Amino acid sequence: MTAALPPADWPPPDGPPGNRDRQRVWAALLIIGDEILSGRTQDTNLRALADFLRPLGVSLREVRVVADDHDAIVMAINALRAANDYLFTTGGIGPTHDDITVDAVAAAFGRAVIEHPEAVALLTAHYPPGELTPARRRMTRVPEGAALIANPVSKAPGFVIGNVLVLAGVPRVMRAMLEDATRFIHGGIVTAAVEWRAVGALEGRIAASLEALAGSHTEFSFGSYPFYQDGQFGVSLVVRGPDGPGLNAAGEELAQLLRAAGHAPELVTR
Amino acid sequence: MTAALPPADWPPPDGPPGNRDRQRVWAALLIIGDEILSGRTQDTNLRALADFLRPLGVSLREVRVVADDHDAIVMAINALRAANDYLFTTGGIGPTHDDITVDAVAAAFGRAVIEHPEAVALLTAHYPPGELTPARRRMTRVPEGAALIANPVSKAPGFVIGNVLVLAGVPRVMRAMLEDATRFIHGGIVTAAVEWRAVGALEGRIAASLEALAGSHTEFSFGSYPFYQDGQFGVSLVVRGPDGPGLNAAGEELAQLLRAAGHAPELVTR
Repeated sequence: MTAALPPADWPPPDGPPGNRDRQRVWAALLIIGDEILSGRTQDTNLRALADFLRPLGVSLREVRVVADDHDAIVMAINALRAANDYLFTTGGIGPTHDDITVDAVAAAFGRAVIEHPEAVALLTAHYPPGELTPARRRMTRVPEGAALIANPVSKAPGFVIGNVLVLAGVPRVMRAMLEDATRFIHGGIVTAAVEWRAVGALEGRIAASLEALAGSHTEFSFGSYPFYQDGQFGVSLVVRGPDGPGLNAAGEELAQLLRAAGHAPELVTR
Repeated sequence: MTAALPPADWPPPDGPPGNRDRQRVWAALLIIGDEILSGRTQDTNLRALADFLRPLGVSLREVRVVADDHDAIVMAINALRAANDYLFTTGGIGPTHDDITVDAVAAAFGRAVIEHPEAVALLTAHYPPGELTPARRRMTRVPEGAALIANPVSKAPGFVIGNVLVLAGVPRVMRAMLEDATRFIHGGIVTAAVEWRAVGALEGRIAASLEALAGSHTEFSFGSYPFYQDGQFGVSLVVRGPDGPGLNAAGEELAQLLRAAGHAPELVTR
């Protein structure tokens, strides 16, 4: 695919709202599909998106999952794009009748749906003669003014309009689209997390010291996550915030807290 | 734990709103926690809840994930409890400072937070003398008027207030709580799904016949899900709706559709 230009109204001349002073930049994710709500399909795109956005300096603030229902999708799009620097959507851009995301995004923006000439050229070249069925041609449809996001896996593109990035639901395709979508994303402060895991630790015994530590570092957020594995209880303590020496120092204080309580914490990396 | 009575205002004398004529009964799920949004933790409670509710005649309509942020939780609770017959929440009811769900639920209902006498008795009996730390005692706090949901795994209870059921985030505990929560749930029509999987099928070739089939059975919803596995593409077709002979017949039509396209579909059971 040739490089697509962003739509004329994106990015705004002074950058995305959250990015004007290198502040936190926030994103929402809208997962579209009956198959997630019914329990048929385990979503993995949330985690993949969070992992992808973190080094770009974008943090997920809210996720919603809605059914293949036009009004529900439109309402969620308009709520989430107004409240966040970016909104990513996954699902509902395939060739079948239950793929209604394009029409919902267009309705949310008050735009018409058009066949994108570049997408038509792309799919015409991709399929053997006669194989660009009307169903497959549906995958060339975008809201007027949208720019394409490349799909190196199966060709049918995603798109961006305003601050909304519309991606496929199939995890392999979604991740491939994110690579190309990077050029539409202007991140802010990069955040990270330091996590210590202590087998045998119990939340009820360390909560007071953890709260004191959190209170002395209000620039970071502290989380405590109990686990039960192979017959043993334990706790993971996490500190999250802007990446840098301060975060690492706070992480070391977490480890000290666990050692002071008699544990031998292990640093978690993944 | 002795059986807790439901709160005085639950259930309403004529049943939950969606259940008065044995219609569909709808639930929302609010997943509370920075660890999900940051990508640290893969949520599995959505799927577990959907699977648990299906045979009770309750369908998930919307899911949201929000951070450990008081205002975000309160706003989501009030939006979701108003729009659904039930709202389930997971996460944020442990003993540490980042466990703020109880206060947010109370704020959403305009209720005070109290120590529930039954929960105090339960945890006093559970911990050795002197081990009911102030942090652990936090887990006896509920909004005034709430009834307890039993936690056979680690004792600290969940609770129900109005149509909101507040559960733990740890999957093992959440599932155990659901067993006890059943007595607060009045389901409607039981739905099910029939799924056929065909290696080698392509959405773009079967979309037209699938759309025609969906159009002739508007009482059911039809979904199409491409997959890629072990180097092969394929499609799963799903029909969902009220359980019974009609659903099974529609499922058989799905199989015929795939056979007519030259495939040998397999029935998916899980």
